[in-house]
Amino acid sequence: MASIFSKIIDGEIPCYKVAEDQNHIAFLDINPNAKGHTLCVPKKEVNKLFDLNAQAYSELMEFSRTVAFGLRKAVPCQRIGMTVIGLEVPHVHVHLIPLNSMSDATFTKKEEVSESQMIELARQIATKIE
Amino acid sequence: MASIFSKIIDGEIPCYKVAEDQNHIAFLDINPNAKGHTLCVPKKEVNKLFDLNAQAYSELMEFSRTVAFGLRKAVPCQRIGMTVIGLEVPHVHVHLIPLNSMSDATFTKKEEVSESQMIELARQIATKIE
Repeated sequence: MASIFSKIIDGEIPCYKVAEDQNHIAFLDINPNAKGHTLCVPKKEVNKLFDLNAQAYSELMEFSRTVAFGLRKAVPCQRIGMTVIGLEVPHVHVHLIPLNSMSDATFTKKEEVSESQMIELARQIATKIE
Repeated sequence: MASIFSKIIDGEIPCYKVAEDQNHIAFLDINPNAKGHTLCVPKKEVNKLFDLNAQAYSELMEFSRTVAFGLRKAVPCQRIGMTVIGLEVPHVHVHLIPLNSMSDATFTKKEEVSESQMIELARQIATKIE
């Protein structure tokens, strides 16, 4: 069965997209730790980060770096955190999280962000990605 | 002032080392989320992940992948999580964490591991890294 991320990639489920290239997509996490929390996902559905082959892993990391550069320009924060867990959605995804405190990184505190704020955040981040 | 990780790299502070190459070192986190929690650190002291240049970033990610492959062979777990936060030690470090539940990933629950267990874990992981 297609993962929820494959459904987003296929356009069956909408997302707040911030970037896309041939093999990856980046969109806002709809249950964000902090404003601007973004997921970077390879379009090919693979469960675990360390099951990606060397090239796919390297390309995902490079794509994530490009997105992170845009994110830190668009969203004021101390630094951009990067996390891969994957216990909840079995389709590799890199969390990029604007961090201001440790609790932004722990997935235990969630931020309420309205739909209009999500649309505006996605737009602002997208315009900063080169 | 040299970071605690630079002091480890320089041999001023001991560590439970699991891997080393010319530009990186990997050792057990002494306050682990889970048994086998490992830090991958570039020897050159840079504060933030996304301040590394493209080559240093790529090499750190590749080194972390190599360590993760050994870690998953040595420590039974559902998957290896990868996290970069950096709010506490201003010297880039990639956390590799053997995950069995979400709480292993959140940095809110810590595991008690004795010194003899740490020595044995480091030895077992080191022997599995290729």
